Amino acid sequence: MTTEAMPAVDAQLQASVNQFYAAHMQLLDEGRIEAWASFFTPDGTFAVDSHPVPARGRAEIIAGATRTVTQLAEQGITRRHWLGMSVIRPQDRSVRVRSYALVYQITAEGPALRASTTCEDVLVPDGGSWLIRERVVRQDAPA
Amino acid sequence: MTTEAMPAVDAQLQASVNQFYAAHMQLLDEGRIEAWASFFTPDGTFAVDSHPVPARGRAEIIAGATRTVTQLAEQGITRRHWLGMSVIRPQDRSVRVRSYALVYQITAEGPALRASTTCEDVLVPDGGSWLIRERVVRQDAPA
Amino acid sequence: MTTEAMPAVDAQLQASVNQFYAAHMQLLDEGRIEAWASFFTPDGTFAVDSHPVPARGRAEIIAGATRTVTQLAEQGITRRHWLGMSVIRPQDRSVRVRSYALVYQITAEGPALRASTTCEDVLVPDGGSWLIRERVVRQDAPA
Repeated sequence: MTTEAMPAVDAQLQASVNQFYAAHMQLLDEGRIEAWASFFTPDGTFAVDSHPVPARGRAEIIAGATRTVTQLAEQGITRRHWLGMSVIRPQDRSVRVRSYALVYQITAEGPALRASTTCEDVLVPDGGSWLIRERVVRQDAPA
Repeated sequence: MTTEAMPAVDAQLQASVNQFYAAHMQLLDEGRIEAWASFFTPDGTFAVDSHPVPARGRAEIIAGATRTVTQLAEQGITRRHWLGMSVIRPQDRSVRVRSYALVYQITAEGPALRASTTCEDVLVPDGGSWLIRERVVRQDAPA
Repeated sequence: MTTEAMPAVDAQLQASVNQFYAAHMQLLDEGRIEAWASFFTPDGTFAVDSHPVPARGRAEIIAGATRTVTQLAEQGITRRHWLGMSVIRPQDRSVRVRSYALVYQITAEGPALRASTTCEDVLVPDGGSWLIRERVVRQDAPA
């Protein structure tokens, strides 16, 4: 098995990454956008393949997420983001994490799967935890 | 980032919590209700927002879960409980864990998502593992 | 609580198992079948309850998975395998892992849940990581 396919991972590193993503996604789903955006570095970038230009810096990231959260609230939609199946690749002082992310929506009709994506992050250390320097989210497409 | 939003977590603590929930949910889905209920403290409480009064103590918890399991069996329904995105907050000797939980049902029509919930537990130490002293499950509602 | 229901788990063991499965499933979903199959021992077995005879050894495992991946590509289907809720039971030098696994499919109609299964693996140590000596996947059935 190649190291490229299966990098070794330290337990404390993985635990802190898991906790980071759980807190990050719960904040998003609660609409606490400023707290959620504080998980990015001040100059962090957030690219989504459906948008031509990535958001750069917390102010742009907050503006974009606030638009989405406002629209969802107007439509009566609650979301639940599940991020998992994370492959963690330490490199120098940062880590690259490639994860799957599912978005569930709860509407008057009940819960339903809305989107299946991959999420690739570059995380940099911040005290005992992490900040996102770069995020790229890609919608999963048919083969 | 505030400590409130993103508490530090020890790897061994997180590992034991993960293993605890995996074993707990597999027992429930296998219908092994007494073994599943042994993950609560003898005086543990289990509140679900759809019921007016929480179950108190293992006997009540077993009685309620047995009714559900019996009904599902009569309807030919298998369930799979996925708990994840857990934020673990140590406090004194206990830990608070706020998780998302999805319930999948398998019927003759195949598998389908049945419910999306949050699960808030207070866990107390029990040897090298945990027991649930308080559980509150809330159905996710439209915004 | 019995040790049978709730085995203790070491954080580094769990971290390496999590990373192993994440890398393994991402390779499968990318169609990198030889890299994916290198996570089995050379004489590893892969049994699926819908097939009468298990695949034995990497060549058979690769052949079976290649057929599936080719068919899915012809039908324009992307898959995402989520494995989780893993109960890890160390025994001697190997570990038994019983997990839930969900298969999502992405087609022109969007993402949808395709299958809910259990996956029981016997993992043997390989340097700092693992190889699968035996895998049994069972489709979840109605009660």
